[in-house]
Amino acid sequence: MKAIAVEPGAGEPVIVERPRPEPASGEALVRTLRVGVDGTDHEVIAGHHGNVPDGDDRLVLGHEAVGVVEDANGTNLTEGQYVVPTVRRPPNGTNEYFERGEPDMAPDGKYLERGIVGAHGFMSEYFTSPAEYLVPISEELAPLGFLVEPISISEKAIEHAVASRSAFEWEPESAIVLGNGSLGLVTLAMFEHVLDIDRTYCLGRRDRPDPTLDIIDELGSTYVDSRETPVSEIPAAYEPIDLVYEATGYAKHAVETVDALAPNGVGVLLGVPEPWEFEIDGGKLHRELVLHNKALLGTVNSHRGHFESAIDSLDQLPGWFTDDLVTGVYGLDEFQAAFERDDEIVKTAVEFASI
Amino acid sequence: MKAIAVEPGAGEPVIVERPRPEPASGEALVRTLRVGVDGTDHEVIAGHHGNVPDGDDRLVLGHEAVGVVEDANGTNLTEGQYVVPTVRRPPNGTNEYFERGEPDMAPDGKYLERGIVGAHGFMSEYFTSPAEYLVPISEELAPLGFLVEPISISEKAIEHAVASRSAFEWEPESAIVLGNGSLGLVTLAMFEHVLDIDRTYCLGRRDRPDPTLDIIDELGSTYVDSRETPVSEIPAAYEPIDLVYEATGYAKHAVETVDALAPNGVGVLLGVPEPWEFEIDGGKLHRELVLHNKALLGTVNSHRGHFESAIDSLDQLPGWFTDDLVTGVYGLDEFQAAFERDDEIVKTAVEFASI
Repeated sequence: MKAIAVEPGAGEPVIVERPRPEPASGEALVRTLRVGVDGTDHEVIAGHHGNVPDGDDRLVLGHEAVGVVEDANGTNLTEGQYVVPTVRRPPNGTNEYFERGEPDMAPDGKYLERGIVGAHGFMSEYFTSPAEYLVPISEELAPLGFLVEPISISEKAIEHAVASRSAFEWEPESAIVLGNGSLGLVTLAMFEHVLDIDRTYCLGRRDRPDPTLDIIDELGSTYVDSRETPVSEIPAAYEPIDLVYEATGYAKHAVETVDALAPNGVGVLLGVPEPWEFEIDGGKLHRELVLHNKALLGTVNSHRGHFESAIDSLDQLPGWFTDDLVTGVYGLDEFQAAFERDDEIVKTAVEFASI
Repeated sequence: MKAIAVEPGAGEPVIVERPRPEPASGEALVRTLRVGVDGTDHEVIAGHHGNVPDGDDRLVLGHEAVGVVEDANGTNLTEGQYVVPTVRRPPNGTNEYFERGEPDMAPDGKYLERGIVGAHGFMSEYFTSPAEYLVPISEELAPLGFLVEPISISEKAIEHAVASRSAFEWEPESAIVLGNGSLGLVTLAMFEHVLDIDRTYCLGRRDRPDPTLDIIDELGSTYVDSRETPVSEIPAAYEPIDLVYEATGYAKHAVETVDALAPNGVGVLLGVPEPWEFEIDGGKLHRELVLHNKALLGTVNSHRGHFESAIDSLDQLPGWFTDDLVTGVYGLDEFQAAFERDDEIVKTAVEFASI
């Protein structure tokens, strides 16, 4: 079967021939339909993140997949059922984080990530997976099933943000997404259409006309140009923000999030930056957090429950939004197009089989 | 009646004569027994924090009080009942934060603080208060009732920290208190005797022999000397910490808390620093928060529910601990002694009437 893989240092993915996998006991065989491409894939391709499985020379890419069960292999799945796989797997047998259904909370060394950290991804015509890591999705939603994984990341982030404010009455009326990439836009759409937050904002650094700014407008959200309004000046230029969602990987935004927050607000961080030293007013940061009961949380990955919530959220997003968000779905013969990047491209996927 | 007040700029408290207050409808008249002194009082005396009530030239000090109801004045209290007053009051009539019992979450301008911000404190022979802000305490605990307010601050901080970790299974096995002042020591005792955390640490910068280090030892906790081990190096020198409680007001400790945390850990900040610019590795801070699901929260003040929990916690603290913690209780004739500070003094109170 064909797979899309990357060799460390090669800098671009290629199609390779791999044997079709045989499901072990407890595993199902899944025929891959579509696999999304995101910033993490580009980090892996560039060699900045992730690693090849032990004993292999290439990593099969892909962690945002949807497929159809080809061989249930005695599991509780049924053939023909559409499924979305979760990403983390236990490295050697299981461990307590996987046993309690919280692989997203496993520390380094206690997980592999398919398509990212030490395990092959889903960009192959078939893949196998323990049935417990395959989340059923309806036929209707299956064509967009590759959006479930990114949405699940935000489900977790929002769950943790809300939990952090659960010791008191907190109803966010304003929210901002820092970053107008596909994850940022999906989260903005969730703020508008799933969480019903009154006033939403999205920070970017693009000029009009731009397809992501069009989506921000159409969502009824306000575009904040970071070249004109630094994150710390958002309260003065717009309003203090109850919920800040950072998806830029830009460390100054993360630190300035504390200034952007309204009293009792929470900033949830998802970007993964490189080391970067700079000067801050640490006293002001500390004082702001304390005197205004503010919170700053990081979150990474997601668990099966978040995938299930993500499927519900996907169902609530308007059709025009997902139409505008997904700017390209490419067959294996033109898979390179799915990895291209420019300002006209928002979200892409590779199609391994038609639905 | 006599009261202990401070004039802005004077730099030291004096005894003043004030009319004994008359309780308004819904208020009780309380005879003051003891009032604790803490770092906030010293900030107020130094003129760094707080302000005098409108139309007055002095602020009566004191926010950590215990008293006995002298005149219930038709409220649901009874004469002779011991009570601890909460600190925040609504500035003009009430507002939504007070209505829902969460004055601790009120933003600037939506609260006064007795003895600190725009309202007279409890360091007078009598005070009045709406009955809803007076929390009953047993006769047995009343002599230590001035510890209820500081304990309530930690009750809130711990409640918020635990809430922030409530979206997953989290049982802290290690905790550190940054700061060996009286609030730090009380919190350390709560970690040991109320929360039963396996391994506790306390950070300070003192040499032995020292009464606070003796208390740390006696609690079975490990003393960490910040002159030898910066906060960021605690994981290497000891272990990564699940729960960091910062009570120093030292901004570098607040920022380095993220390094001290174990994966999925939470740092709760309570210190109130001045502005202070310094260099940080913002990329590392951001990345650590995200990839290890870490959280950093600020909390300030506390509400009636925290006072009620604090009374339960006070009841669980061992007698030797409170004996060693309270190094002096001084009558009005020697009240200045309660405001002295040196390494032999841990916690003091002024006694207005014997119990």
